[in-house]
Amino acid sequence: MNMLFAKHQNILDKAVKASHERTFYAQYPEHPKAYGEEAPAAGEAAFKAMLGQPFDRLLQDSDNWQGEEVSPYTLEPLKVSYPIVPADALVIAAKEAGKKWAKLPVTERAAILAETLEAITKHFFEIAYATMHTTGQSYMMSFQASGPHANDRALEAIAMGYQELQRYPGQLTWEKPMGKSSIKLDKHFKAVPKGVGLVIGCSTFPVWNSLPGLYADLVTGNAVIVKPHPKAVLPIAIVVAAIQKVLQENGVDPLLCQLAADTSEHLNTKELCEHPDVTLIDYTGGSAFGDYVEQLRGKTVFTEKAGVNSVIIDSAPDMDAMAQNLAFAVSLYSGQMCTAPQNFFIPANIYDEVAGKIRDAVSALVNNPKMGAGTLGAVQSEVTFKRAQEAGALGAKVLLGGGPVNNEEFGKARTCSPTILETTAEEQNVYARELFGPVILLVRTKDTAESIQLAKEMARKHGAITCAAYTTNAAVQAEIEEEMNSVFTPVSFNFTGFIWVNQHAAFSDFHVTGGNPAGNASFTNPEFILKRFVWIGNRTQVN
Amino acid sequence: MNMLFAKHQNILDKAVKASHERTFYAQYPEHPKAYGEEAPAAGEAAFKAMLGQPFDRLLQDSDNWQGEEVSPYTLEPLKVSYPIVPADALVIAAKEAGKKWAKLPVTERAAILAETLEAITKHFFEIAYATMHTTGQSYMMSFQASGPHANDRALEAIAMGYQELQRYPGQLTWEKPMGKSSIKLDKHFKAVPKGVGLVIGCSTFPVWNSLPGLYADLVTGNAVIVKPHPKAVLPIAIVVAAIQKVLQENGVDPLLCQLAADTSEHLNTKELCEHPDVTLIDYTGGSAFGDYVEQLRGKTVFTEKAGVNSVIIDSAPDMDAMAQNLAFAVSLYSGQMCTAPQNFFIPANIYDEVAGKIRDAVSALVNNPKMGAGTLGAVQSEVTFKRAQEAGALGAKVLLGGGPVNNEEFGKARTCSPTILETTAEEQNVYARELFGPVILLVRTKDTAESIQLAKEMARKHGAITCAAYTTNAAVQAEIEEEMNSVFTPVSFNFTGFIWVNQHAAFSDFHVTGGNPAGNASFTNPEFILKRFVWIGNRTQVN
Repeated sequence: MNMLFAKHQNILDKAVKASHERTFYAQYPEHPKAYGEEAPAAGEAAFKAMLGQPFDRLLQDSDNWQGEEVSPYTLEPLKVSYPIVPADALVIAAKEAGKKWAKLPVTERAAILAETLEAITKHFFEIAYATMHTTGQSYMMSFQASGPHANDRALEAIAMGYQELQRYPGQLTWEKPMGKSSIKLDKHFKAVPKGVGLVIGCSTFPVWNSLPGLYADLVTGNAVIVKPHPKAVLPIAIVVAAIQKVLQENGVDPLLCQLAADTSEHLNTKELCEHPDVTLIDYTGGSAFGDYVEQLRGKTVFTEKAGVNSVIIDSAPDMDAMAQNLAFAVSLYSGQMCTAPQNFFIPANIYDEVAGKIRDAVSALVNNPKMGAGTLGAVQSEVTFKRAQEAGALGAKVLLGGGPVNNEEFGKARTCSPTILETTAEEQNVYARELFGPVILLVRTKDTAESIQLAKEMARKHGAITCAAYTTNAAVQAEIEEEMNSVFTPVSFNFTGFIWVNQHAAFSDFHVTGGNPAGNASFTNPEFILKRFVWIGNRTQVN
Repeated sequence: MNMLFAKHQNILDKAVKASHERTFYAQYPEHPKAYGEEAPAAGEAAFKAMLGQPFDRLLQDSDNWQGEEVSPYTLEPLKVSYPIVPADALVIAAKEAGKKWAKLPVTERAAILAETLEAITKHFFEIAYATMHTTGQSYMMSFQASGPHANDRALEAIAMGYQELQRYPGQLTWEKPMGKSSIKLDKHFKAVPKGVGLVIGCSTFPVWNSLPGLYADLVTGNAVIVKPHPKAVLPIAIVVAAIQKVLQENGVDPLLCQLAADTSEHLNTKELCEHPDVTLIDYTGGSAFGDYVEQLRGKTVFTEKAGVNSVIIDSAPDMDAMAQNLAFAVSLYSGQMCTAPQNFFIPANIYDEVAGKIRDAVSALVNNPKMGAGTLGAVQSEVTFKRAQEAGALGAKVLLGGGPVNNEEFGKARTCSPTILETTAEEQNVYARELFGPVILLVRTKDTAESIQLAKEMARKHGAITCAAYTTNAAVQAEIEEEMNSVFTPVSFNFTGFIWVNQHAAFSDFHVTGGNPAGNASFTNPEFILKRFVWIGNRTQVN
């Protein structure tokens, strides 16, 4: 047996089991302390040493080095530059590297990939600082989302591939009885990879959202080209460099996994998408480009696009605990999570009480000096910042205005606390669209039946990744689940305390269902893996 | 436990195991004798009694009854009429019936569906005669393809659904440790069906090609509308009626599975395809309509379209046995199988010898009074018949002309023996397209390397479902497998005797890979089932 496989087999088998059982499982601890006392400071130092320099860890080269990242915390450019490689050269190198990789048994591929995850853990803190200063996430979220949580999602994809590619025997004898004699065929079953994968990252979760597609492509035998958002390159560049190093150490062509950095002025995305040899595309980002990717012919496409996430409030045993939980859910990373709630449907009979509690809870959180800055982080882009600042002009009544959040460490941070708008069921022109960032809408409805109908309609038309609901009535709970599930939206009921609708746990929660306009794929259901290769059976007569 | 499930659990479990192991397995014997001595005659009598009558077994009604089937054996109309139901009424009834069905546990659904297969076996011989006199298949092929082989493929789909929908637990407690305390969530995992399925049948294999999609839709909780080709309705109408009866006997709305008969003058296919509530489409037939179905937005589509199947002849220990095997493969049902070989790539150094042997073998088979009529059957349509008759005008040299085949039982049968054309590698205008029916092309190539390159190019550009190859050289065999698999085409090597490249065995051979233009789906890989429903996890906090 391959030694690397022997080293990782237990982890792979445990991950397969966890993915089936869907109980709590994490291979990579989410507590920074688990990685050693020195690790955070060392990571920060390593990050600082990269600033102002060409990023020289990749095993790729170019005559053209560019970079345009700006820290949402300091508003200073990072001045890190990356090799710009023409699309065609990337694809040619990927195809070449993929040839040998496709022939390795899946056990060996999975073991090498598990080894890359182990290597990435050594970089968790520099990735955290890189994430913080490109996305605007808080330090703790940057560490968890781009570090252990991303690695767990990657392992989930590897484990699913490791399992699925072993579904059928590689070789067998098929013997058909024919009276006194028989026909004997030697059959070979092969999982043939589709080719070259392209993973298009987003500016807010450059690692977490890219790793599942990246590892799904690799474990199924494909080469992968990682196309980051030009404003959030460094976190995933560190990951790709770590992967390339492990590949090389294990005799695999490191160009199996390449970074396709580009610039806002000269984007390479469409050229890569439309390249005839790019057969797989994973995309996270806005719906307009997502729709373009989905309509490309002859490509297998996995998308996570925009959605309008609803909260349905019917009743709650503890309205204050509910309001505090929701206040945190909408404030976390300033509403820049694809899972963040946006529209709150509240029946008229409890509307004033609930609206007041939510306003007060958000206000208290934002102004809590120990909580505010750390929860909200910074706003990634000027576009989101402007949308948040102009939310008051959307045509709805402003219940709570958004504004700067005091950040003691970074005085110049681009911050904006949530704006809370009030509107009615009829005003769909205001709430029937994604308002990415720190803007939420409280929608006064006739009753919970109307709330459900509207939340369902939003999910069906505009997509939804999450739905939070609060009710003490079992029949209402069953109805909400039934109706929201019918538009392929999962529901989280009665969350209070240290659990939020925004969070999806690896090995248990599917992230996006793939069934509504918010995206056509899901981390990590079996389809996410199976669509990347083709089962083929060859037959040879042996008698 | 549900009694029906107790009855069928063993069959379902055995089918799941067989699908994984991929060794020989058949639940339904392919020998007519297995179904009782009286069964064939009773089936023939039942078929004859249906002629000239409205088909009154369906639990559907209409004011409008139509039918236009004509026997390829007698050229007489069958004069059987079917209820014509407007597309919208079919979809409304399907949606209504689907509601309760979607809520049944998959074990109960699978058991009811296994029961329908058992009920269908009682109709195998009337289905055989109906298939014979609509498609032109021989009696034996009609019996096997529309009877036991179709039922085995149906069971394969049921078993895959039965297994996949039980992949995750329905309910569990997720407990995340948080230092001294923990967060507890009650999680519910549900496989939510996508909605209403449409299965579009073809005129040559009206049962075999429709059952996998029909049963895949049903086992995953969807309703299904079965749209037959207007010239081949009766075989699948008998099946749908048998299914409806079992559904009703088990308290299920029989309109869960409806027949959507139409006429050539007023086709309902596009209206059904474009209906917003039709979310799943299975299609078998020509590429033009298949391409239309594939480009529909917001639908999950499974296609089997046209392809150009190649034979690569490099060397063979017994050229005569090879020629006889290939002669049968091209003559079987007059080349009207989607798996039939069309283009034979033969290197110049053995071309004359091989071409002569193939010509002689086809000629001997066609003119063998005990074999000819039974192997070739009849030609389903006038279009195919005309194409075959005019094959001599395609611009290639005629090595063997096609002509009438003597059929003792049916003097008027629409028959045409294979035309063998000779051409060269350069003449792609002749061979680079599907010539459905009894036309084959022998292509003289420079060497086997060129043969492989051309077969690969045909599969990549025009699609291929099968590839037969003959070689005594292990390195050449490996190269053929590698190259054809790279365009997602399986290879059958060195078939002689009672096994033919046209045949794909249930539970072992994938029918179509889904990876080239011949179709995007595969009987029955996991995707064929998984794409029909969406995994959703709901969470409720319990502490």
